[in-house]
Amino acid sequence: MIGLGVMGRNLLLNMADHGFSVIGFDKDTQKASSLEAAATAGTTVKGVTSLEQMIQQLSQPRRVMMLVPAGKPVDDVIESLLPLLQKGDVVIDGGNSHYTDTLRRVKYLEEKGLHFMGMGVSGGEYGARTGPSIMPGGDKEAYKHIQPLLDAISAKVNGEPCTAYMGKDAAGHYVKMVHNGIEYAIMQLISEVYDLLHKGAGFDNDQLHEIFKQWNEGELQSYLIEITRDIFLQDDPETGKRLVDVILDKAGSKGTGKWTSQDAMDLPIAIPTIDTAVAMRTISGYKAERVEAARLYPSALQPYSGDKQALVKQAGDALYAAIILCYAQGLAMLFQASKELSMDIPLQDVVKAWRGGCIIRSTLLQDFYKAFSSKADLPNILLDASLANIVKEKQESLRAVITTAVAHHVPVGGLMSALAYYDAYTTERMSTNLIQAQRDYFGAHTYQRIDKEGSFHTEWGNTNK
Amino acid sequence: MIGLGVMGRNLLLNMADHGFSVIGFDKDTQKASSLEAAATAGTTVKGVTSLEQMIQQLSQPRRVMMLVPAGKPVDDVIESLLPLLQKGDVVIDGGNSHYTDTLRRVKYLEEKGLHFMGMGVSGGEYGARTGPSIMPGGDKEAYKHIQPLLDAISAKVNGEPCTAYMGKDAAGHYVKMVHNGIEYAIMQLISEVYDLLHKGAGFDNDQLHEIFKQWNEGELQSYLIEITRDIFLQDDPETGKRLVDVILDKAGSKGTGKWTSQDAMDLPIAIPTIDTAVAMRTISGYKAERVEAARLYPSALQPYSGDKQALVKQAGDALYAAIILCYAQGLAMLFQASKELSMDIPLQDVVKAWRGGCIIRSTLLQDFYKAFSSKADLPNILLDASLANIVKEKQESLRAVITTAVAHHVPVGGLMSALAYYDAYTTERMSTNLIQAQRDYFGAHTYQRIDKEGSFHTEWGNTNK
Repeated sequence: MIGLGVMGRNLLLNMADHGFSVIGFDKDTQKASSLEAAATAGTTVKGVTSLEQMIQQLSQPRRVMMLVPAGKPVDDVIESLLPLLQKGDVVIDGGNSHYTDTLRRVKYLEEKGLHFMGMGVSGGEYGARTGPSIMPGGDKEAYKHIQPLLDAISAKVNGEPCTAYMGKDAAGHYVKMVHNGIEYAIMQLISEVYDLLHKGAGFDNDQLHEIFKQWNEGELQSYLIEITRDIFLQDDPETGKRLVDVILDKAGSKGTGKWTSQDAMDLPIAIPTIDTAVAMRTISGYKAERVEAARLYPSALQPYSGDKQALVKQAGDALYAAIILCYAQGLAMLFQASKELSMDIPLQDVVKAWRGGCIIRSTLLQDFYKAFSSKADLPNILLDASLANIVKEKQESLRAVITTAVAHHVPVGGLMSALAYYDAYTTERMSTNLIQAQRDYFGAHTYQRIDKEGSFHTEWGNTNK
Repeated sequence: MIGLGVMGRNLLLNMADHGFSVIGFDKDTQKASSLEAAATAGTTVKGVTSLEQMIQQLSQPRRVMMLVPAGKPVDDVIESLLPLLQKGDVVIDGGNSHYTDTLRRVKYLEEKGLHFMGMGVSGGEYGARTGPSIMPGGDKEAYKHIQPLLDAISAKVNGEPCTAYMGKDAAGHYVKMVHNGIEYAIMQLISEVYDLLHKGAGFDNDQLHEIFKQWNEGELQSYLIEITRDIFLQDDPETGKRLVDVILDKAGSKGTGKWTSQDAMDLPIAIPTIDTAVAMRTISGYKAERVEAARLYPSALQPYSGDKQALVKQAGDALYAAIILCYAQGLAMLFQASKELSMDIPLQDVVKAWRGGCIIRSTLLQDFYKAFSSKADLPNILLDASLANIVKEKQESLRAVITTAVAHHVPVGGLMSALAYYDAYTTERMSTNLIQAQRDYFGAHTYQRIDKEGSFHTEWGNTNK
């Protein structure tokens, strides 16, 4: 393991816990030496500050993993490894690299007779130590050399490992990128429902904790609902308030959500709820402008006067429908990307690997797993009959919740984009015929017809009556 | 002029009409020779098939413009020009090049002592011939050599030319890109209002024509409303139906809307309504999936039973508010890009140049011009007091229309994203504090506090009660 930051260290200790002899390298003496102290008694863990020393002690084919910041650090590590490795060795990048970088590195190392694998790891610090979801992609032969280790250290659901081969080339990093995009979208949806229940309907943190607790015991059960439940109870020792109320409303990002949206547009595939999540985090950063705008646009809102318990039920159902619509967008993106970029991504294995260990794990993944089990090449999970029944039932609550939020000036762009996606996707004839008419009118971009093949252009506009 | 396609030819003939002696080059003999035939009697127009011959006849500093497809053709033209030009000559790219390409070319030609200007031209074929909106950017000294010509051939509003210097480097193409992004968004909004009035409320094409005709005579007056008004009357000679009903609901794109969204995310700046327009055009392309989904999700909708005339009034007001919110997003993007990319874009001149000739021209541009006249460095037009009064008044109609559309399953992602933008932007405290709490919980990404400076991390989750 190259790079003994908290993720690299924890992943390595996890490997050692499962009986693998491991060596970690870091230029930082303190990080290298503290590694051994942190290891479980009886495990074989060594920390070194010399790359040469580490490589010498590995048996062939060597399996060298790095967990360093994306970008130039990854290239630097590769260059320092090249003189030390031999044909057939496997180099694994476990960070959040952009898939185009991974693709370039796969080809570069292939020319040198080495295998390069891009591997997504999700689960945070704690997951890395106890069982993450692991998304490896690249050469399938090389994968066989690391499969036993990945199967051992990953999270387990029903005894099955939350890891699988994700496809060729940069598939591992591509799948992890989309995972993160879905994560952005679900977090946005949860924050909107929180906003509606808190500012709109006046529920306090204790009540919100109870609501999320109940949700987490039902069909909404998921890691993100679970931690949200806990967040509402966390105290701030300094003020005596709940910590969530003291946190500034600026959400940061590391860029993987942005990449997901940008790359989806290139395919192209529509993932409007992920786009919206990215946009809303950006707006959260305009704090000074928002303070000014709030003065210019004062709202004299009435508190919610309807049945509060009915609203909670609706909000849970709306959230459930919208979350399914987020996964639908992300998985449709993987379906399309797999074809366009020839990655052969097995979607059934993707959702299987996401069932445990990762940030977007939820009981829903089991439903998606069933859907892909009955039809492996499903272009969109909304086309699965069982899931269709769920979404059809819940979408009325999504409409109701949006209507309430609109009346109470609560920004619910994520919920709205999920509904707009649903309403557009399930519409046989959209209104885009008008857009194509406009494009042909002003730019002679031509149009297709509903009654025959071909491209047509009309000299428009001589119709003033 | 290099490239005598319809845009290049029309722009060149427009120059000749204003007394300039012009030469056009195209490898295609037919295009070169037909140019002279198309010229207005008494004007000086020459068509040649030899680049050398064209360059020889220009006085110095030579002003050479190209209108060729974006990408490699532009680089090819540059390479063929280099041996023929001399220091101080000006090369102008009038196509839809991506601004990063333009930036690269500016630097490349600068090294050779030449000026390279990226210039956006909007107005379609007809506008090119009679008066387009022109957005030149680049070296300000070089601009002076072409200013009299651009002032002469551009559209005029109140006697003032719809062209101005847009800023340094690639500013011209950047402004044109954002222009196109706004265009995408407004077209999406119009198509949604059409959908609601047509499928939702049952108005036929004649009635829609009347509605858009009235709108175009009031505050919504704009080119896109005007052509939409006409589109509803256009007959299809083959079927006897109206053409708009025969056009397939797949909307194409040339990619400038996509670029706008992708580049906005890099800045970052939020333009969710443009993002949504891009996504909806993409969904329009999934025709086969939508047909399948429509069978799986049959909707048993009730026809609209409310006051139809009231709905028309609301729809017009909603559209007006949403269109302002589109411009707000695009202009905020230019504000931010100007700073981030050191382009010194004068926003007042941008909206002045957009008042006439271009696809997004509307009476609203005059209001924006006033706003920037009183505060040149306005980060967002929503912060202008006069515009705030308009938006505050109209936003209730936007809410009402969305609520109606939600109930009638009409996809209105554009209108919704405009409202979500408004509600988020005018909110002092968003719900993104929860997102930041979640990020710190699972990824130790730290958070800021409302009561003091700094970055903080909490060991979350020991709260199970």
